[in-house]
Amino acid sequence: MKYYIGIDVGGMSIKAGIVDGMGNIIAKETAPTEAERSSQEVIKTMYDLCETVIHKANLTKADIASVGIGSPGTVNSQKGIISFSANLHFKNVNVLKEFRTHWDIPVFVGNDANCAALGETLFGSGKGKKNAILITLGTGVGTGFIIDGKIYEGRNGEGAEGGHICIRMGGEKCSCGERGCWEAYASATALIRQTKKAMEKYPDSLMHQVAKEHGKVSGRTAFTAHLEGDKPAISVVTKYVKYVATGLLVLVNIFRPDIIIVGGGISHEGDYFIKKIEKYVRKHAFGRNLNRVPPIIRASLGNDAGIVGAAALGL
Amino acid sequence: MKYYIGIDVGGMSIKAGIVDGMGNIIAKETAPTEAERSSQEVIKTMYDLCETVIHKANLTKADIASVGIGSPGTVNSQKGIISFSANLHFKNVNVLKEFRTHWDIPVFVGNDANCAALGETLFGSGKGKKNAILITLGTGVGTGFIIDGKIYEGRNGEGAEGGHICIRMGGEKCSCGERGCWEAYASATALIRQTKKAMEKYPDSLMHQVAKEHGKVSGRTAFTAHLEGDKPAISVVTKYVKYVATGLLVLVNIFRPDIIIVGGGISHEGDYFIKKIEKYVRKHAFGRNLNRVPPIIRASLGNDAGIVGAAALGL
Repeated sequence: MKYYIGIDVGGMSIKAGIVDGMGNIIAKETAPTEAERSSQEVIKTMYDLCETVIHKANLTKADIASVGIGSPGTVNSQKGIISFSANLHFKNVNVLKEFRTHWDIPVFVGNDANCAALGETLFGSGKGKKNAILITLGTGVGTGFIIDGKIYEGRNGEGAEGGHICIRMGGEKCSCGERGCWEAYASATALIRQTKKAMEKYPDSLMHQVAKEHGKVSGRTAFTAHLEGDKPAISVVTKYVKYVATGLLVLVNIFRPDIIIVGGGISHEGDYFIKKIEKYVRKHAFGRNLNRVPPIIRASLGNDAGIVGAAALGL
Repeated sequence: MKYYIGIDVGGMSIKAGIVDGMGNIIAKETAPTEAERSSQEVIKTMYDLCETVIHKANLTKADIASVGIGSPGTVNSQKGIISFSANLHFKNVNVLKEFRTHWDIPVFVGNDANCAALGETLFGSGKGKKNAILITLGTGVGTGFIIDGKIYEGRNGEGAEGGHICIRMGGEKCSCGERGCWEAYASATALIRQTKKAMEKYPDSLMHQVAKEHGKVSGRTAFTAHLEGDKPAISVVTKYVKYVATGLLVLVNIFRPDIIIVGGGISHEGDYFIKKIEKYVRKHAFGRNLNRVPPIIRASLGNDAGIVGAAALGL
């Protein structure tokens, strides 16, 4: 039996795991990214983690079929190059070549959201679906597209930047420098900003108490207070659902996938949140009375999606 | 040598042509659609046009390899069904089956914008490009997507509705019933509305004189006056360019194609208009400093794009 290593590289930590052909993680390990280091050093850490997890799983290098690396940013998967990643301070780094100076094994590199989308359609909640969109609602908004069972990343991996589609011309400033991006409305960061704004306006809102209990305003503050019937919180949640759904509608009207998978921190809020989004999308999709709108479900691989998805690049 | 028939079905007229393997039209003919008729009658007219053009070209049925039909609306090309077309009053019409009651020949059915995109990448200004987006700026905004040399139309042909991506939440009302759609800002219809609004506000604008000379306010009114330095017209054109470019940016950030092709009535305004759009897209695309932004060019097949594109379905 062959095993696949998946490496999930983030700005804070690098996670590596050994995955079997069914998507099960046999062993995993984490190390800090220390992104201020050179790309060579970061890639050496990836390799060291491989050695560690192989040892942990009582395997040898000969048991491993391939190594998959999932990274944030623009990834040219055909060439194995991370063209640009703000979180990793990488710019045109040939990860494939550099990694193989340590270990001569098939190496695959992909964008992390794309990897997660692949993992979910192979082993997660989108299992068996040939056309899927995954979105992650976290610090930013990530998108991954599976078309005909394969990752779609645009020319040279420069596409699939769904977080930066404009949903409101001249609207909120986005981290990318533009205005009105979906990410500037639908990320956890945006939700926290929207929550704080509503709290300023409504000093009596339950959100103040919720935030106090948790020590800070988070992506959960408005959701928690809205479940208690707090009107300003209900307003924040209703608007946030509309923001998430508006971007999804753009993707639905273009791709009309078999399924939409929602992941990232905010998705943990629960199925009731996903149902609200689905309701809005169904109501507003183009040809809503005639065409079928894809179901929207929660990602199921959770924190392991990165490892499993990266490993899946080698399947 | 084999020939291909392309049929371009519109709400007003049906055009049919015989196309050779190089994309040249050998003969063509037009008939009124009379869309109030039954689908059977409309499809019979399509067949009659085939007979006419074959005769016109001094060919016989045996010289024809296939018939391609391009239609507005939602087309399930795999099944040969026009699921919905407002212009044709068609709803779940199996065009393939019905056409073949007249003539037992390979028949292909596709959305008209998709056909035009295919035609342009095979024989027009996008020749040789594997990944292309075509947009048409006419009564509405149509979009066609070519991925890896093939039409991408989403599941059951229900996707690729780029005209109905939301670029301004809560914005202008669109013909589809939603608000803020790209079409509601970038179509010729929208441009005329924007022009009229500016004319009301500026009674001294040159646009009044231009409109008077042409007998009406058209999609050209603001462009003509802006070339003469009329400030309100310059403002209309500048904003319109921004509207067109904003929707294109959504598509660029998702697909990052090799080329973007602009067709439809407004594209005849000329290359200077296309250059303005290109400039805006280059300035605002995600990763603009690092990624290559695809060139934007005018469609070159003009009024024949529908016939050539439909015929290309059979190639």
